[in-house]
Amino acid sequence: MKVVILGCSLVGAMVASWLSSEKNQVSVVDSKENSFHRLPKDFEGEKILGMGIDVPILTQAGIEKADAFLALTNSDNTNIMAAQLVKQRFNVPKIILRVYDPQRARAFGEMGLEIICPTTIVAEKFKEFLKSK
Amino acid sequence: MKVVILGCSLVGAMVASWLSSEKNQVSVVDSKENSFHRLPKDFEGEKILGMGIDVPILTQAGIEKADAFLALTNSDNTNIMAAQLVKQRFNVPKIILRVYDPQRARAFGEMGLEIICPTTIVAEKFKEFLKSK
Repeated sequence: MKVVILGCSLVGAMVASWLSSEKNQVSVVDSKENSFHRLPKDFEGEKILGMGIDVPILTQAGIEKADAFLALTNSDNTNIMAAQLVKQRFNVPKIILRVYDPQRARAFGEMGLEIICPTTIVAEKFKEFLKSK
Repeated sequence: MKVVILGCSLVGAMVASWLSSEKNQVSVVDSKENSFHRLPKDFEGEKILGMGIDVPILTQAGIEKADAFLALTNSDNTNIMAAQLVKQRFNVPKIILRVYDPQRARAFGEMGLEIICPTTIVAEKFKEFLKSK
């Protein structure tokens, strides 16, 4: 599987590392060189320095042949813009993004984007803990 | 249940709002006044402006009678320090904290702190999505 990941955040790096270790073809795009230090030293994927809402950068990352695109920067806005751009411009079967703001996650989810909202997921975990025992 | 929440972050505000709506006694501590805007307008709990690693502030929040303490600032360091402080100084039955860094989450988990690591949880969600269909 060919996967393009935008954002070498903690989650981005963890997913990239896992996918690469399972012999997938991974390209990680980040606008800050320093972010790539989160990847393990033996990471075999591609690291691309640049903006993820920039078509030439996405093309360089291989978006035209990608099976999946993950928008995982720490900015909801960037993730939403990038996912919309990829959805409109490229034929990528799986597109998913992270949106922290629960209201925007719901709104853009209803507009057809596949969204993971860490806020809701993590709040649920805390509720489960409080209800336990 | 009496709950003290440190950090009116997105998750902190969501859990506080939920607990308060279920008639629990909730105190939210944050060092920035502006953070309290994340709480709903009808929030019935207490908002306390101050540092969560400060014993007088925790006392003001009612930590001595608390059934649970949740450390939910956006800083791993603050959450770890606050949870350790509460664990050592007060008799709170349930203490749980958020730690983004997976390595530190593991290390402090092994030291006996109850930790939720959003990074690992959210990365798992992305993996599930990629494996689906």
